[in-house]
Amino acid sequence: MTKVIKNGTIVTADRTWKADVLIRAGQIMAIGQNLQGDEEFDASGCYVMPGGIDPHTHLEMPFMGTYSSDDFESGTRAALAGGTTMVVDFCLPAPQQSLLEALQMWDNKTAKAACDFSFHMAITWWGKQVFEEMAQVVDKGIPSFKHFMAYKGALMVDDDELYASFQRCAALGALPLVHAENGDVVAALSQKLLEAGNNGPEAHAYSRPPEVEGEATNRAIMIADMAGVPLYVVHVSCEQSHEAIRRARQKGMRVYGEPLIQHLTLDESEYFNADWDHAARRVMSPPFRNRQHQGSLWAGLQAGSLQVVATDHCAFTTDQKRYGVGDFTKIPNGTGGLEDRMPVLWTKGVNTGRLTMNEFVAASSTNIAKILNMYPKKGAIVEGADADIVVWDPKRSKVISASRQQSVIDYNVFEGMEVTGLPRFVFSRGELVVEESNMKTRPGHGRFVAREANPAP
Amino acid sequence: MTKVIKNGTIVTADRTWKADVLIRAGQIMAIGQNLQGDEEFDASGCYVMPGGIDPHTHLEMPFMGTYSSDDFESGTRAALAGGTTMVVDFCLPAPQQSLLEALQMWDNKTAKAACDFSFHMAITWWGKQVFEEMAQVVDKGIPSFKHFMAYKGALMVDDDELYASFQRCAALGALPLVHAENGDVVAALSQKLLEAGNNGPEAHAYSRPPEVEGEATNRAIMIADMAGVPLYVVHVSCEQSHEAIRRARQKGMRVYGEPLIQHLTLDESEYFNADWDHAARRVMSPPFRNRQHQGSLWAGLQAGSLQVVATDHCAFTTDQKRYGVGDFTKIPNGTGGLEDRMPVLWTKGVNTGRLTMNEFVAASSTNIAKILNMYPKKGAIVEGADADIVVWDPKRSKVISASRQQSVIDYNVFEGMEVTGLPRFVFSRGELVVEESNMKTRPGHGRFVAREANPAP
Amino acid sequence: MTKVIKNGTIVTADRTWKADVLIRAGQIMAIGQNLQGDEEFDASGCYVMPGGIDPHTHLEMPFMGTYSSDDFESGTRAALAGGTTMVVDFCLPAPQQSLLEALQMWDNKTAKAACDFSFHMAITWWGKQVFEEMAQVVDKGIPSFKHFMAYKGALMVDDDELYASFQRCAALGALPLVHAENGDVVAALSQKLLEAGNNGPEAHAYSRPPEVEGEATNRAIMIADMAGVPLYVVHVSCEQSHEAIRRARQKGMRVYGEPLIQHLTLDESEYFNADWDHAARRVMSPPFRNRQHQGSLWAGLQAGSLQVVATDHCAFTTDQKRYGVGDFTKIPNGTGGLEDRMPVLWTKGVNTGRLTMNEFVAASSTNIAKILNMYPKKGAIVEGADADIVVWDPKRSKVISASRQQSVIDYNVFEGMEVTGLPRFVFSRGELVVEESNMKTRPGHGRFVAREANPAP
Amino acid sequence: MTKVIKNGTIVTADRTWKADVLIRAGQIMAIGQNLQGDEEFDASGCYVMPGGIDPHTHLEMPFMGTYSSDDFESGTRAALAGGTTMVVDFCLPAPQQSLLEALQMWDNKTAKAACDFSFHMAITWWGKQVFEEMAQVVDKGIPSFKHFMAYKGALMVDDDELYASFQRCAALGALPLVHAENGDVVAALSQKLLEAGNNGPEAHAYSRPPEVEGEATNRAIMIADMAGVPLYVVHVSCEQSHEAIRRARQKGMRVYGEPLIQHLTLDESEYFNADWDHAARRVMSPPFRNRQHQGSLWAGLQAGSLQVVATDHCAFTTDQKRYGVGDFTKIPNGTGGLEDRMPVLWTKGVNTGRLTMNEFVAASSTNIAKILNMYPKKGAIVEGADADIVVWDPKRSKVISASRQQSVIDYNVFEGMEVTGLPRFVFSRGELVVEESNMKTRPGHGRFVAREANPAP
Ligand SMILES: [Zn+2]
Ligand SMILES: [Zn+2]
Ligand SMILES: [Zn+2]
Ligand SMILES: [Zn+2]
Ligand SMILES: [Zn+2]
Ligand SMILES: [Zn+2]
Ligand SMILES: [Zn+2]
Ligand SMILES: [Zn+2]
Repeated sequence: MTKVIKNGTIVTADRTWKADVLIRAGQIMAIGQNLQGDEEFDASGCYVMPGGIDPHTHLEMPFMGTYSSDDFESGTRAALAGGTTMVVDFCLPAPQQSLLEALQMWDNKTAKAACDFSFHMAITWWGKQVFEEMAQVVDKGIPSFKHFMAYKGALMVDDDELYASFQRCAALGALPLVHAENGDVVAALSQKLLEAGNNGPEAHAYSRPPEVEGEATNRAIMIADMAGVPLYVVHVSCEQSHEAIRRARQKGMRVYGEPLIQHLTLDESEYFNADWDHAARRVMSPPFRNRQHQGSLWAGLQAGSLQVVATDHCAFTTDQKRYGVGDFTKIPNGTGGLEDRMPVLWTKGVNTGRLTMNEFVAASSTNIAKILNMYPKKGAIVEGADADIVVWDPKRSKVISASRQQSVIDYNVFEGMEVTGLPRFVFSRGELVVEESNMKTRPGHGRFVAREANPAP
Repeated sequence: MTKVIKNGTIVTADRTWKADVLIRAGQIMAIGQNLQGDEEFDASGCYVMPGGIDPHTHLEMPFMGTYSSDDFESGTRAALAGGTTMVVDFCLPAPQQSLLEALQMWDNKTAKAACDFSFHMAITWWGKQVFEEMAQVVDKGIPSFKHFMAYKGALMVDDDELYASFQRCAALGALPLVHAENGDVVAALSQKLLEAGNNGPEAHAYSRPPEVEGEATNRAIMIADMAGVPLYVVHVSCEQSHEAIRRARQKGMRVYGEPLIQHLTLDESEYFNADWDHAARRVMSPPFRNRQHQGSLWAGLQAGSLQVVATDHCAFTTDQKRYGVGDFTKIPNGTGGLEDRMPVLWTKGVNTGRLTMNEFVAASSTNIAKILNMYPKKGAIVEGADADIVVWDPKRSKVISASRQQSVIDYNVFEGMEVTGLPRFVFSRGELVVEESNMKTRPGHGRFVAREANPAP
Repeated sequence: MTKVIKNGTIVTADRTWKADVLIRAGQIMAIGQNLQGDEEFDASGCYVMPGGIDPHTHLEMPFMGTYSSDDFESGTRAALAGGTTMVVDFCLPAPQQSLLEALQMWDNKTAKAACDFSFHMAITWWGKQVFEEMAQVVDKGIPSFKHFMAYKGALMVDDDELYASFQRCAALGALPLVHAENGDVVAALSQKLLEAGNNGPEAHAYSRPPEVEGEATNRAIMIADMAGVPLYVVHVSCEQSHEAIRRARQKGMRVYGEPLIQHLTLDESEYFNADWDHAARRVMSPPFRNRQHQGSLWAGLQAGSLQVVATDHCAFTTDQKRYGVGDFTKIPNGTGGLEDRMPVLWTKGVNTGRLTMNEFVAASSTNIAKILNMYPKKGAIVEGADADIVVWDPKRSKVISASRQQSVIDYNVFEGMEVTGLPRFVFSRGELVVEESNMKTRPGHGRFVAREANPAP
Repeated sequence: MTKVIKNGTIVTADRTWKADVLIRAGQIMAIGQNLQGDEEFDASGCYVMPGGIDPHTHLEMPFMGTYSSDDFESGTRAALAGGTTMVVDFCLPAPQQSLLEALQMWDNKTAKAACDFSFHMAITWWGKQVFEEMAQVVDKGIPSFKHFMAYKGALMVDDDELYASFQRCAALGALPLVHAENGDVVAALSQKLLEAGNNGPEAHAYSRPPEVEGEATNRAIMIADMAGVPLYVVHVSCEQSHEAIRRARQKGMRVYGEPLIQHLTLDESEYFNADWDHAARRVMSPPFRNRQHQGSLWAGLQAGSLQVVATDHCAFTTDQKRYGVGDFTKIPNGTGGLEDRMPVLWTKGVNTGRLTMNEFVAASSTNIAKILNMYPKKGAIVEGADADIVVWDPKRSKVISASRQQSVIDYNVFEGMEVTGLPRFVFSRGELVVEESNMKTRPGHGRFVAREANPAP
């Protein structure tokens, strides 16, 4: 039983050409002219691209006794609806919890995933047990470890622990990730704002200025440098952080930066909306920045100093957001984006001339697969690769609206934005899962993707 | 009649995997496991990579009534010996000469080329005729135009002409290149040095300090920015020039920088050698720089702010160099390098850990093919690509010596350097042209590679 | 016959203290407590500061058969009204004209100057005569030479000439100044705009983008570096130019940057005013920039990477501006500012907290006197200095209006701006020339200030 | 009883002129021509400058049950011998100790001081008591607070405490200082080196790379920015730290950087000396760096991005250094320098053309007095200032040697360096305390200098 995508133009990270794609058994079997298959899909006028990969999601993430509302079922459905065929989520052990036990818990959530997925493991505490279990986590196909420099009193680790963990990553051939904000200063600024009576969502932005993010990025880079390990900085939102990354790269360091589609296209004025709900729905960390920061992020994608675009999808309903009425520090942090990342990046990136189509593929898929060591199984249109494919119709357009979205939450931060460039077909390991607005996803289809560590040094 | 390269590990710009390569009719016909062919080549223990491309050579270049000594025969033989399967040379019209007529003259020189080649057209004067002929040159498959900001009174063009030509490039979808040094200042410094009695080869270096190159690079970038065209800066030799490129890229401009293998590995102390011949043989523009500049260039290749490595191969014999005894400004500018570029870059780049093997392929071949619009015909290991392939033996080593080189000149600027990593086999459009030290090149095998312009804006 | 300024607080570039100032014979005779004099001036509540120095004016400048409208009489009266007690004007030889002859012409214009003045000599052409006369110009007390990198076909000199003149400056201990814009590119952009039918004043701004200024600044710096001479960049208007200056200073070069009060406080939106006259009155080169550039200039004054604030006062009436109706390139370049520089800098600099009072004095007076080698005769409150003093009342305020200005032109680019901080008294070499709104200036009181060269190297 | 310094050339931070200086009652009474006094000192051929101020010393500093060997008697004698007439020392409270009690202890040490002195108060722990006592410390004339970001487990404070203390400084108009090195990383690197058997003094340098200092500087700057307070970074030793300072200044922040005379002139090769004693005597934090870092520091003094030069004088004998045999972390940190700072800065700065004489005065005295709020009482040659004066003979020279030094330790890190430019006379508040090699210092002459806070915000 084979499928063939006919008459399209293949667009990969490094070239563009007209060819058909033959799929069998979930993989790309052939690429060439006039291929035949049992089932044909017409890609006329479309671009045939590697399915998107979102390297940064939080599905069904525990939070104050409840969970972020999109779970692996609705979250991966949203992903597929927008042309994203794989997500990488974060396993977050509780303090003193075994990494392996946490991993089991997270794995349990994925039973209804509709697309493939992988995990990053978070290092939320430090000790001999963590040190040792890191090797087992790598053996299970998870050679990437996340570190929070913010969320003091909860997930945050200090410089000591960062350095110890980064060294351990170096020894294991694993990649450390950081959420870079100075947690001490964020906590102090938040306290000060609350004491001064600033308890609304706009105070969230005040409590996390770009300088605070830039500082932490710079610090993480130094620690990675001392440990002799590459570094991946999640949700780079501002010039200060980007500048630190550029400076590191310019001395030859391997540092990667991940802007979010939100930071590329939305700005801080959202927090000044008079409607508490409107503003609170946009509360995430780092917060949206001003237009100069957006310009910096786009230029980074153009210059190659930033490499990938993610969502940090962590969806809370308006009801959940309202936990923070009267105290912005209690507003659950996170926004959606999984369904919108690809169309918004195409619309604001490719249609404006900022990015070439090849750069779009690189930033939304291929670079991620390379950095996370799963290329070309994922992120590629080559023979033998998983048939995670999006057939992209550059003419299809829609107005983004919560009323029509796959995510279970009741709003969308991109509400009202017109996007041009949408999937005609989406394939997940060869299965047709989306046909224009028609969702054909199957809960449970998604599988865990094990990734290799780098060779031991 | 097919050939198959067996048991090797394919290394491309974006991945590394074990597979065989099947060649037929000069092209790659298949890539896969256990391929069979009429003739087999054992690549055990080797890397199978796209043949190198040198984007910057001057073969049989006219100079003061004579020519640079390596012509298309010996030059391409040297190239192939070192794993480079294509060169891009510069067509240099005389003042007031028709571009088309010059192109004919250059084309005439290529009859004995042993590998494929293309041209850049130089804009050495300006006028209505040049403006118009540029379109015809593009139509002939040469969408790249070189501009000299130095060599005052000879090849140099001024800012007016640069801007006019860059605008014309923009309109034609062509890529402007610049030799970036401030010709006025070089001429004045040279005059001053001669007047002060500094007439030896070391004065050549004094006459062209890094600041003078950085300035011109910065100026060319501004002019390209105003004209709305990308820019390719040849022989970037110093931090000043690199800094200007970084600054441009960081605002989103498409500026490319080409360090030479010489500037990456040799330093200015060569000019202080007491032996006039030793120093004069290293005279090229820009001159070799100090170690800090070398560090900047390597970091640029690592960070992606510099993209390609070339040679500016322009070989003059010691006798020719001696035209400049008593007046360094008369020493013909140029060194060799075609045979050495790949082994030296591998030895000093990959073996030291500075570059990954994939980055080596990108810098020596793939990025060049992409920037010059001939990818994936060249610079790729994919089905349908030209079978320009080097089977690289990372264990083979030699000591570089003029006594064993293909170039016809009587010295080698890398003399005595031990390199580890050399071709086992080299294929040019499917023909085996090198087997270890055994040269099997065939004069006349090489063909002109026509390149496409970018889409008109 | 002595005067004493009583009860004030002296503010100099390096300190602030309460003391009286005793004046005799045009000089400061004593500074101390409880001084007595024949005439007393009450400075209660005021700051006693060195009179302002404007290093950049064009009074009665020849232009297309007419002259800029403020001459040395009205111009110096305007200066004094705003607390500026000295101006440095530019002597502009015609092509092939003797520098000395031009100087005589310029000197003839100064008969009615109401405050002291000096000149910069412009190098508008190059030759043996210029080379030789430069020494005589220095001997006459003018050790600063201006070079125009723009105004192609008129004042512009090329890189050759710049380098020759900068070398000559080095030999003479003189300071080169540059108007930094790439004249070739400005001319080409202007032509292109006119051809496209953009002939209004807003096209003036389009024809001189920041990149064009930054490039020229960078080039002038390199040439100064090669010539071994300091450099003074007039009217630095943008981050690009400022960045080049910072980069130079950071390698230890002595490069000075002069923002204008206009560029610090007015922005490019002025050119988009629907009223042709409004926009044309703001036409100057470089044009006003956006707010980010303003921020850069203020930060430069704070950090010390920019040192002085000038006006480039060159006042044309609306009638004169109208020469350029239908062709923006014919709009005479220049705005006023002499009367407003000090109050506007105080209001937007000191009152906002950007600058300390001491920094205000440094930027408006002392640094200029130091850089131009006339400190502490000018720019200082010390015994023996010329009694050029402004008694500044930080509470006095007014709304700037052409209807009340000293300049003879019919508009003011700061029209409607409220300033707080104005002179109570102004003394020019000991003579009271302004008492609040009361002008007591005396045409012909001003004298030429001869300045020393730096020691020969 | 008056003294007059005759026939000299006065050199201050902002000008140079010939005048006599009349001293009475410890202060400068008059400056002018042909002054008469009871006692005359011939300054022919000499420069009359403000006495040096060393903003960073540790005299009789407690260390592991003993003390740094130069106390206020020998230390201030050394200072005066080299033309430094004031030192600012650090009061270091023990954990939980009252700041006021510590200050009393420190004050007790100063009974035999031969020159004037002041203190910085260190914040070595945090709590309500510290918060409150800071106001009292300011009231006692000490508006500057030092923070250690290194020396983990001892003096180090964390980001929380830094931010709290910086905010307190802002409220009090006080200036925070930081020793900027990432203490966590230093501790971990040290541990790692020891475990690997690297226990010699060279490992001290390995344990504190420039990146570790640059990171902490960057972090302190961000925290100061958030607290809205200026910042003074002590012993800036490297480009990384300097770069962070430049970046801050370039956004308008008031950040000051203090290179040490050691880092300006000595390099890391000292640690590779085979003689343990030689290397250990140079152990200080930050360690000496390479020549590129030296170049950065000198350029900073030229550009104004670094402002002052200090010594961090903390003198341990070879015997004391030997506590660290077998474990470099136990080598007491510190070198001498008080006697040598001025002659070495003059020799390597002024005599080489890097700094003007005025810049020498600024960096060695005036800028310090300004930043620490004691100008022009100190750091100035003006009427009413303290007569802390050095009469500098630019022709006098000597070879630095421990055998002839005032410091009580048995070596000198500048041993063998020839300096040209030495005091002929030194006056401390009008008393002649040095006459060439003749020491006339009087223990107990020195007095505490109270300094003002900045106005409350
Ligand atoms: Zn995060
Ligand atoms: Zn996240
Ligand atoms: Zn060239
Ligand atoms: Zn060339
Ligand atoms: Zn101008
Ligand atoms: Zn002007
Ligand atoms: Zn310290
Ligand atoms: Zn210290």
